[in-house]
Amino acid sequence: QSNVTIYGVADAYVGFGKHGENDLRGVNSGALSGSRLGFRGTEDLGNGLKAVFVLEQGFNIDEGTEHVEGSAYSRQAFVGLGGSFGTISLGRQYAPGYFFSYDALAAAAIGPQSVLSNGAGMSITPNNRARWNNSVAYTGSFSGLTARVIYSAKNEEVNYKRGTSTPDVYDYANPSSDDAYGVGLEYANGPLKVGGVYQIVKYSENFELDDTLNWVTENGSKKQKEWGLGASYDFGVVSFHASYQSASNLSGWKSYDADLWQVGLVVPVSTAGNVHFAYGEVEFDNPKGEKDTDVKSYTLAYTHALSKRTTAYVAWNRTDNGKGEELGLVEYRAKAGDLTPGGENSDLLGVGIRHTF
Amino acid sequence: QSNVTIYGVADAYVGFGKHGENDLRGVNSGALSGSRLGFRGTEDLGNGLKAVFVLEQGFNIDEGTEHVEGSAYSRQAFVGLGGSFGTISLGRQYAPGYFFSYDALAAAAIGPQSVLSNGAGMSITPNNRARWNNSVAYTGSFSGLTARVIYSAKNEEVNYKRGTSTPDVYDYANPSSDDAYGVGLEYANGPLKVGGVYQIVKYSENFELDDTLNWVTENGSKKQKEWGLGASYDFGVVSFHASYQSASNLSGWKSYDADLWQVGLVVPVSTAGNVHFAYGEVEFDNPKGEKDTDVKSYTLAYTHALSKRTTAYVAWNRTDNGKGEELGLVEYRAKAGDLTPGGENSDLLGVGIRHTF
Amino acid sequence: QSNVTIYGVADAYVGFGKHGENDLRGVNSGALSGSRLGFRGTEDLGNGLKAVFVLEQGFNIDEGTEHVEGSAYSRQAFVGLGGSFGTISLGRQYAPGYFFSYDALAAAAIGPQSVLSNGAGMSITPNNRARWNNSVAYTGSFSGLTARVIYSAKNEEVNYKRGTSTPDVYDYANPSSDDAYGVGLEYANGPLKVGGVYQIVKYSENFELDDTLNWVTENGSKKQKEWGLGASYDFGVVSFHASYQSASNLSGWKSYDADLWQVGLVVPVSTAGNVHFAYGEVEFDNPKGEKDTDVKSYTLAYTHALSKRTTAYVAWNRTDNGKGEELGLVEYRAKAGDLTPGGENSDLLGVGIRHTF
Repeated sequence: QSNVTIYGVADAYVGFGKHGENDLRGVNSGALSGSRLGFRGTEDLGNGLKAVFVLEQGFNIDEGTEHVEGSAYSRQAFVGLGGSFGTISLGRQYAPGYFFSYDALAAAAIGPQSVLSNGAGMSITPNNRARWNNSVAYTGSFSGLTARVIYSAKNEEVNYKRGTSTPDVYDYANPSSDDAYGVGLEYANGPLKVGGVYQIVKYSENFELDDTLNWVTENGSKKQKEWGLGASYDFGVVSFHASYQSASNLSGWKSYDADLWQVGLVVPVSTAGNVHFAYGEVEFDNPKGEKDTDVKSYTLAYTHALSKRTTAYVAWNRTDNGKGEELGLVEYRAKAGDLTPGGENSDLLGVGIRHTF
Repeated sequence: QSNVTIYGVADAYVGFGKHGENDLRGVNSGALSGSRLGFRGTEDLGNGLKAVFVLEQGFNIDEGTEHVEGSAYSRQAFVGLGGSFGTISLGRQYAPGYFFSYDALAAAAIGPQSVLSNGAGMSITPNNRARWNNSVAYTGSFSGLTARVIYSAKNEEVNYKRGTSTPDVYDYANPSSDDAYGVGLEYANGPLKVGGVYQIVKYSENFELDDTLNWVTENGSKKQKEWGLGASYDFGVVSFHASYQSASNLSGWKSYDADLWQVGLVVPVSTAGNVHFAYGEVEFDNPKGEKDTDVKSYTLAYTHALSKRTTAYVAWNRTDNGKGEELGLVEYRAKAGDLTPGGENSDLLGVGIRHTF
Repeated sequence: QSNVTIYGVADAYVGFGKHGENDLRGVNSGALSGSRLGFRGTEDLGNGLKAVFVLEQGFNIDEGTEHVEGSAYSRQAFVGLGGSFGTISLGRQYAPGYFFSYDALAAAAIGPQSVLSNGAGMSITPNNRARWNNSVAYTGSFSGLTARVIYSAKNEEVNYKRGTSTPDVYDYANPSSDDAYGVGLEYANGPLKVGGVYQIVKYSENFELDDTLNWVTENGSKKQKEWGLGASYDFGVVSFHASYQSASNLSGWKSYDADLWQVGLVVPVSTAGNVHFAYGEVEFDNPKGEKDTDVKSYTLAYTHALSKRTTAYVAWNRTDNGKGEELGLVEYRAKAGDLTPGGENSDLLGVGIRHTF
């Protein structure tokens, strides 16, 4: 038992919200930090070497359900070897984009960077798209500089039908057709934190526009490419946060691209209290040549530390969707018979508590 | 790790039973107490305040399966703040009806109150219907008096089709259409324990009888209303237990009501051994005006404490179903071709062990 | 918390393999030992008696998923009483065949005995078919001799249609129609280990050949009968391992039988390093009177103990399938349009780490 440390987060809030016809009033999980329970350990192997493991389950505290059904450790599951050179590990692990945290809400689910990156399908995000199965990862820290590299083999190749042959003949996808790669660098020194991430996610099922501007399935692999740059600076009376990120071929849709920027600040108003404000926008490039669509998202929050481990909070997010978009923390429901759904505001006000153990 | 306590129950028994054509012979889970594994913790926040959390998984020890598939913590999952005023918590939590324990089997699954309340679909029960998702709960104890209040927002509204329009048009259920409320009071002092519970569970899908006495779907919300009163008194050489509870509009079926009463006693026969006997009846009011149906259930058990934490037991329950009813601990199977199924005895004899850790 | 010990294995490897058209390149879980997390405890009851429990989850560390979806404790879940007489326990437990470990890879997934017994559907195997639900088990150890007995009632009887009656009439399977029984004896003394196992697994759904040599469903229960004998001897500079096992009516298919033998050796090449080699064959008896088919499997591995708890390894297995067979560690994919699939080599090379905690 001394080999294992149990840790976790229990974060629940009372929420009030609306998105289209969906009125939300209830108790939800994880506005500040995803609820989780983890087991981890380190063994000293001598000669500066150590073995490490992490098994971390994500769950919804409002219903007691697994965050990903059937997944015991949906957040992280890996084993590795570490030393002065860094750590090499195998399993389900975070891509560098998970650590791309340069926003005033510290990557909280209720912050614009999380809302918009998740809604856009980006992998530079504090959400599930930054957790990569079947991966080998390297992390090393040297004098304030942290380097992260990951390769994910995934194993979910989609096989596609060959032409119009009868009976059906399938070509097997190449095992590398859904691989993913990522590299990240971060420098932290006193009040300053800056970093950059580059990631490629390959999709073995792809889509492209044909001559009549209809999406058709395309054989072969399409790369979703992403990069991001961010920085935070803490002046003491206020800290500033900003990031910019760009993605192309989202989810394997050729030339369906998006850019996301966000800025924010945190103002300490008492020993325990902080006011947070963040504003972000994502712009989707429409490959059909129509007008691009924007989604704006902003969050105002007050957090109050009841202890180092426990924080009470009230937070409000509005996500203002451009034409046809349905992003936001509250699931969208269209009006009955609406032929042009989307484009409405998603609002959420949450009052809750986050307890870290 | 010092922040987390692991606890649980492992309860398994060899069972022999019968219900209609179903012969049972095997190993089952949880005749005395549901098998579970939990993680809990308390943090002192100063000023008499504390943060608390509980994450409790239910499982079937006979097969290793989750009690509710896909639910990591099917029994309880909550985080809250406590103080001298009591505790306020958010998550998946027990309604007051879970603590309505005034029977000779201490709310064991094999006792009549559990068998009958569960089979009737009541929420004043030691079973799953007393675990409410998306809830806010308050518990406070003052000089032997414990007060419990809960509000569950649930999030499972059913949307219903509007009239006969084509294409289908759906009206969204009001977010409050499946809410649930509960309040409970209990007073315990020396040998005496008395208490009462009142609960309302709203169903967004409802049914009522039309003029031809057929059940038809009814739009709008129907309230299952329940109340119960119970008492226990321990004379030392024997303790007595009794309760009465009533429910209307069971599961949203208009005027489908039931009343349940049960009595029982526990006789200590040695330092470690106790004999338990309990008898209960539930009467279903038939809204169609036909004769009401009764189900009787009785349990005889011997429990032997091998230690404070470990109990060996042998217990027998018979549930004697009235016309058409299929309640009981053994699942009912009708005879092939039986046109009037139900109304048979469910018998179960269990020999097992309960270990608490 | 002092009542519960947490333990487990995190085993991951980078794998390269091929089987038919399936190219594997990725990260996988558990080549040496299945990844697991367990909770166990023992309580001293006095008089030489003790209560014990084990709850052990299996998971895939490469994806964080449960080994058996929806199963909290897919490996083991039981509670029992122990003493000088041995231990009697109830739950999901290992049949004696799980402990039938007389191979040079110590029952690792990448060893021939595991590959072949699992592929053939035998229950004398270190895989899932040796984990029996709803079981009562006895284990006792006396001066180097360990006896194991188990009875599993299972609860998965299949009901079958009676003749050609309309409407359909089903006969309920007898509760004993899918029971399983097992007994094992093992003697270990210094360098020597010998043992034997006998197991019967009843299938309530069975198949037999009709006059035209087509498989047809047969009502009634069919017994898969198995026995095995094995031995290991450690000479210090090398240890030898060998076993033979036989099974009839595999998976309830009448007269579909198989025999499996394997031999192997382990050579310590340094204080921490061992070279392992194992070779095995399974022969399937074809009840249709055609030529029997063979599958050969061999494994070469090097394991290096980084500590008592952590082992680095490289291992290679080839499984050479006879006509129409598809056994192996890499899932088989046929060539498009192949009318006689199977009969190809399954190759897997793994480089990984096993950490025990």
